[in-house]
Amino acid sequence: MESDKPLKVAVLGCGSVGSQVVRLLDEQAGDLAARVGAPVELAGVAVRRLDAPREVEVPEGLLTTDATGLVTRDDVDLVIEVIGGIEPARSLILAALEAGKSVVTANKALLAEDGATLFEAAEKHGRDLYFEAAVAGAIPIVRPLRESLAGDRVTRVLGIVNGTTNFILDKMDTSGAGFAEALEEAQELGYAEADPTADVEGFDAAAKAAILASLAFHSRVTAADVHREGISEVTAADVASAREMGSVVKLLAICELKDDAVAVRVHPAMIPATHPLASVREAYNAVFVESEAAGQLMFYGPGAGGAPTASAVLGDLVTVARNHRVGTRGAGESAYADRTVLPMGETVTRYHVAIDVDDRAGVLAAVAMAFAEHGVSIQTVRQEGRDADAQLVVVSHEATDAQLAATVEMLRGMEIVREVTSVMRVEGMAE
Amino acid sequence: MESDKPLKVAVLGCGSVGSQVVRLLDEQAGDLAARVGAPVELAGVAVRRLDAPREVEVPEGLLTTDATGLVTRDDVDLVIEVIGGIEPARSLILAALEAGKSVVTANKALLAEDGATLFEAAEKHGRDLYFEAAVAGAIPIVRPLRESLAGDRVTRVLGIVNGTTNFILDKMDTSGAGFAEALEEAQELGYAEADPTADVEGFDAAAKAAILASLAFHSRVTAADVHREGISEVTAADVASAREMGSVVKLLAICELKDDAVAVRVHPAMIPATHPLASVREAYNAVFVESEAAGQLMFYGPGAGGAPTASAVLGDLVTVARNHRVGTRGAGESAYADRTVLPMGETVTRYHVAIDVDDRAGVLAAVAMAFAEHGVSIQTVRQEGRDADAQLVVVSHEATDAQLAATVEMLRGMEIVREVTSVMRVEGMAE
Repeated sequence: MESDKPLKVAVLGCGSVGSQVVRLLDEQAGDLAARVGAPVELAGVAVRRLDAPREVEVPEGLLTTDATGLVTRDDVDLVIEVIGGIEPARSLILAALEAGKSVVTANKALLAEDGATLFEAAEKHGRDLYFEAAVAGAIPIVRPLRESLAGDRVTRVLGIVNGTTNFILDKMDTSGAGFAEALEEAQELGYAEADPTADVEGFDAAAKAAILASLAFHSRVTAADVHREGISEVTAADVASAREMGSVVKLLAICELKDDAVAVRVHPAMIPATHPLASVREAYNAVFVESEAAGQLMFYGPGAGGAPTASAVLGDLVTVARNHRVGTRGAGESAYADRTVLPMGETVTRYHVAIDVDDRAGVLAAVAMAFAEHGVSIQTVRQEGRDADAQLVVVSHEATDAQLAATVEMLRGMEIVREVTSVMRVEGMAE
Repeated sequence: MESDKPLKVAVLGCGSVGSQVVRLLDEQAGDLAARVGAPVELAGVAVRRLDAPREVEVPEGLLTTDATGLVTRDDVDLVIEVIGGIEPARSLILAALEAGKSVVTANKALLAEDGATLFEAAEKHGRDLYFEAAVAGAIPIVRPLRESLAGDRVTRVLGIVNGTTNFILDKMDTSGAGFAEALEEAQELGYAEADPTADVEGFDAAAKAAILASLAFHSRVTAADVHREGISEVTAADVASAREMGSVVKLLAICELKDDAVAVRVHPAMIPATHPLASVREAYNAVFVESEAAGQLMFYGPGAGGAPTASAVLGDLVTVARNHRVGTRGAGESAYADRTVLPMGETVTRYHVAIDVDDRAGVLAAVAMAFAEHGVSIQTVRQEGRDADAQLVVVSHEATDAQLAATVEMLRGMEIVREVTSVMRVEGMAE
């Protein structure tokens, strides 16, 4: 089955990632051929408009607007999908698999929404579907979870998987800026889009969390299963309060195994400054993995950008091309464990709650009672200010999110409580 | 070719890693079967003495002292080698490959000394030889370099790949202790052996550096190619001096691409406290990778220990077992680039030099002249002390190691120089 016949690659999309893929296919041609065992040639690049400006010069005659025609062409062996979004990406990937082409994609939104359809098509047609670039850009995390940790039992994944929000929170931490000001700076520097919703409200991170949880726990988890909160409500006071307790605020994608169920969520959280994730600065990403035998691992690097994402795409391409050449395929989807996803209310976590209270005798006892009444035990209480401005800052021990939410609800209704000024979860700290 | 027939695994060695492998094969049997697609069964465990105490209970009748008999048994499909050292490990791996068994090994010393023989045997007999556990324990670094970055061009690898020396240097940094005192503490806590030579003199790190360089640069690099210096000469004053310039001292395995040649070395070096490797504490390991498209990546985790190493071994086992089941094999050795290894003298680096000098006019000029005469430009000079105790601390720009060594040699011969008290390389800093 082995041959030195060139392998022909179709690229769908020629934006910031696609143009880097095209560049690297050309510049690294010699190395790619040696690593695959056969030359890898660009068969065509599907784009929406032939005359749009691009970062790379695509060789004469290779641009086409007929994406379906390209992915089903007889001489095409492999397809790279870097268009993004649900359609037409899904139809094109399915058409490619059906036509017997293996596929490499960077499409997190599609995988998180409807990965099952794609994986089933890959299985049915006996082809590879690889997607290292879909989570945390250039950082190898899909392959380590699928393969390196395949003999171990992963118990938790904590990820900083969105560069925009990490840049904003890092800026708030280092400069004391508020959310709006930090967002504006991120936009000026190109780290945030004009409409930043997908990033700051956690949609992007939730898609990645679904993919990470699926891999880590060998179960199908979709974006709809992920409890999601963004960072637009995080205030300078929250960040300052985190700092008071030796912590920083990060937007985390959290995937946990609880008994035999899975909890998956994305929300801002306070983590200790000594935690390896705390020192992830600017727009960098990192994924922290805990497993039974390996212990604690962390993977760090650029989570986005044309060239880093293209590096991940081409790493997959080499594997898929080798498989194609020798007539085999890599491991497919692993969802045998079929674990239940817990509702957020049953997820076990800890809260940091800041409460403006009347400064009079018995206030602390009354607040403590509200926690006790819901079975939540308190780890620390810090009392700040005096007289008119008294504030209590409570950090709880672990409890279900429902218990904690009910406690906060009760606090809000108490006469001595003027305002619950901040509620944030606390992660990555030893109980 | 696919079947659900159980795969039989022979384990060579039942020490701290082997006993954890045996434990996990039993405890994770259900998950392993689901991930491989067929049950994975223990066929036998080869040990030196049947009656030695062990951390795991090996099922009745599976222990044997006949390792060669075990690896060549007809019913054995896969072999795990966790004996370590050169012989009998090499002969057993070769016998296994020759008998058509794929092999997973954690043996860094053997791979670094004579990997070529093993890889050629694997190629000849069409079998897999996997070795994730040989570098940095549980941290997935072999697979990312071999596969994830296969479409990219790695330019540098900086690794903290020995936990014992990192523990000692971290202790010296945090407590101000000298080398001897920190070593003693490491020995008491079980982080250093009674005879710590292999760790503190850099032999262990050099073996890993050779493997990392081979993978990163697709060339054969052996332990003998690696310039090696240990940490036994590092003083509390060196650590304090590093701290003065905002740096820490780490034992680094450094693999670099220079034009089309490879430079590989292990030595203590000062790195900026802001570098991601600087915050790697205690006995943890981390590998920092720079590549053309992906940029900067870091992989962090436990670099040794029975369970973490066993996790890496079993991850490889799942891949090798899947391959065996469908009658294929993974990528073999990639040494096509066949790059030259530069002698240490031609390696480009930077020096931090502390010099006790006579405190008189013209001293600085004379010292500067010694650097200039060898074509080494100075980045900073710090003058400390006065009168009898004057000291100059010079940090150079990049130059070849030969130029820098010749400069230090000249300084040592100068009348105004009382003593060159410390010479250490500086890495990970922007030029």
